[in-house]
Amino acid sequence: MTVTAPNGFRAAGVAAGLKSGGAADVALVVNDGPATAAAGVFTANRVQAAPVRWSRQVLRAGKLRAVVLNSGGANACTGPGGFQDSHATAEHVAATLSGTGTGTGTGTGTDVGAGEVAVCSTGLIGERLPMDKLLAGVTAAVAGLADDAGPAAAEAIMTTDTRPKTTVVAGGPAGAAGPAWRVGGMAKGAGMLAPSMATMLCVLTTDALADPADLDAALREACRTTFDRVDSDGCLSTNDTVLLLASGASGVTPSAGELTAAVTAACADLARQLIADAEGASKEVAIEVVGAASETDAVQVGRAVARNNLVKTALFGNDPNWGRILAAVGTTSAVFDPDQLDVAINDVWICRDGAAAAPRDQVDLTGRQVHIRIDLHAGAATATIWTNDLSHAYVHENSAYST
Amino acid sequence: MTVTAPNGFRAAGVAAGLKSGGAADVALVVNDGPATAAAGVFTANRVQAAPVRWSRQVLRAGKLRAVVLNSGGANACTGPGGFQDSHATAEHVAATLSGTGTGTGTGTGTDVGAGEVAVCSTGLIGERLPMDKLLAGVTAAVAGLADDAGPAAAEAIMTTDTRPKTTVVAGGPAGAAGPAWRVGGMAKGAGMLAPSMATMLCVLTTDALADPADLDAALREACRTTFDRVDSDGCLSTNDTVLLLASGASGVTPSAGELTAAVTAACADLARQLIADAEGASKEVAIEVVGAASETDAVQVGRAVARNNLVKTALFGNDPNWGRILAAVGTTSAVFDPDQLDVAINDVWICRDGAAAAPRDQVDLTGRQVHIRIDLHAGAATATIWTNDLSHAYVHENSAYST
Repeated sequence: MTVTAPNGFRAAGVAAGLKSGGAADVALVVNDGPATAAAGVFTANRVQAAPVRWSRQVLRAGKLRAVVLNSGGANACTGPGGFQDSHATAEHVAATLSGTGTGTGTGTGTDVGAGEVAVCSTGLIGERLPMDKLLAGVTAAVAGLADDAGPAAAEAIMTTDTRPKTTVVAGGPAGAAGPAWRVGGMAKGAGMLAPSMATMLCVLTTDALADPADLDAALREACRTTFDRVDSDGCLSTNDTVLLLASGASGVTPSAGELTAAVTAACADLARQLIADAEGASKEVAIEVVGAASETDAVQVGRAVARNNLVKTALFGNDPNWGRILAAVGTTSAVFDPDQLDVAINDVWICRDGAAAAPRDQVDLTGRQVHIRIDLHAGAATATIWTNDLSHAYVHENSAYST
Repeated sequence: MTVTAPNGFRAAGVAAGLKSGGAADVALVVNDGPATAAAGVFTANRVQAAPVRWSRQVLRAGKLRAVVLNSGGANACTGPGGFQDSHATAEHVAATLSGTGTGTGTGTGTDVGAGEVAVCSTGLIGERLPMDKLLAGVTAAVAGLADDAGPAAAEAIMTTDTRPKTTVVAGGPAGAAGPAWRVGGMAKGAGMLAPSMATMLCVLTTDALADPADLDAALREACRTTFDRVDSDGCLSTNDTVLLLASGASGVTPSAGELTAAVTAACADLARQLIADAEGASKEVAIEVVGAASETDAVQVGRAVARNNLVKTALFGNDPNWGRILAAVGTTSAVFDPDQLDVAINDVWICRDGAAAAPRDQVDLTGRQVHIRIDLHAGAATATIWTNDLSHAYVHENSAYST
């Protein structure tokens, strides 16, 4: 049930006509409380979409009553008018929710302000949204809110995704009625997928009780080791947003460690689903760097390999081309001796001490899962970066997307 | 006549059987003097091929009598044995040249030491060279040395290049017998083409008189604004080498400015030829960044756009997707205001003030030459980065190369 798995949340997904094919394209997630604490992390790209600028501003207060998301248009690079569109969308959500008495019986009151509504958009950069269609979609979404509509919301945020990405993580020990509290989530993202401090669009919900600072700490730590280590195509988006909303409806206050663990598990699950469904990918590649002098070094090396088009095309061709991996490692400033580098592909150590070892025909690359292990022999730190191959389908999809 | 255009040089290109198809694969360039000053710049990759390590060491003395180059194998990531192979190759060149009396009549004497012989290799990483074939090829190359064999040498260093890259630049005012002095050059490189302080393999010759320090200064400045601004596929090689040999045979000592200008012109010509023949490319793309606060900023922005796979696939699809260009600019630390960015593609300003301007259907991308101009409105500095699109042919060629 994704974002509606935790208690205290309703959602909706409707078709507003933003996508030409008539698929669902407006999603709404509402927190009915009793609490409304929230946190968010956003793209590190300095060119930020209007909804990112709006939501960043809103999140400063640490409270969210609702998140409205649209596919069919990123509302990025749209000037002051684009920002006004995001603002107007939030105003419309707030007014419509207030009119329908959201929160009735939950003790949070019925008045929702625009400053409690985050906005997320995804799609083509550089075009204004058709506001008449979008606002009508918001009205329909509010009318369709249901406490089991998480899957519909997850469908509505898809762009080139071929399937929705959802997760539910149990928090705390299970009682007779299930776990004490939960984290639910949905995400989208299939291209422009190299998030930094966030990925694409992701909304996480929890019925745990937590204040905004705890949510923020848990979310940042979770993103750091999950979405931030996904690098499908090296391209950082203008719209990346990850939001975490806490209703407190379970009445349970987890420890910081418990909260972080559950949020991290949810993010890791969604991150793996992003890589599994990346545009045109035929391989899901885990690049595990071990023996690093620091975690920073391990991440730098993993990312350099993940972004190397010659490594990525070789993987597409089922070619265990470890020489290209070493050439990529050599572009980094990590601590290592080139004559001590070891590389294994799918557990076959084809490079030892910076030179050829096991015969390359021992490496079986015909499967979809690829595991590259790079030992820097410089320390005890480690990190894994997840990426994809570079395929004809990636080129095809991304050379035809906006025309 | 490429490297044999300046006086004082002989060259050869022969087939030694390193390439499976029987094409020429060993090249030799010999400086008959009277001077033997030389300079070199090498890859910034920390994983450096054996011939790079050898040639770096040799160049410390600032003198070169010969350069031997082979395609059909990079001799990179080949361990201590690979370095011994490069050393043995230089020894064989030196012994064979001494035996045949190179330099006879030129006043440089007949004894050549291995420490005066640079070695360059290109091809697959991670495999030892077949030394019996290579040394026999060297013997044949020495026997075939001729003062008009520059074109044969340029052919012998090709790998996935579809045509040789050569240049001749006139130095000084032309007299009755031609220019007072010349710079000649040859280069190869079609993939793993994002040189830093050098590109692929390139040998430049000149009959100007210059000491090693002047040659070094001229070569570094030339590379900085030419090869270092070529970024075809973002992948830095282990073997990049640019060498400049001066015979002094013209008797003319140009000023530092004249020397730098001529070497830069030669490098720029060769750099353009590299981009024109890059693996699988259907576009030659100049990314001109203007209005930058510094040249460093301009280069950083140009390179970020050049390395963005979504920009590159859009260009392959003839799609003037300026939103992807802004998203790439936004990943940099250059000085700019996102709301003041302007972008022109083939002279059509489709983005002004960070938002849509001219209609995208005004941009004609059907030709091979693409000119992207990005105005940061942050200063007066400028730089141009040359790159290519990302095509099906690139993926095909690089997914099938070593298997």
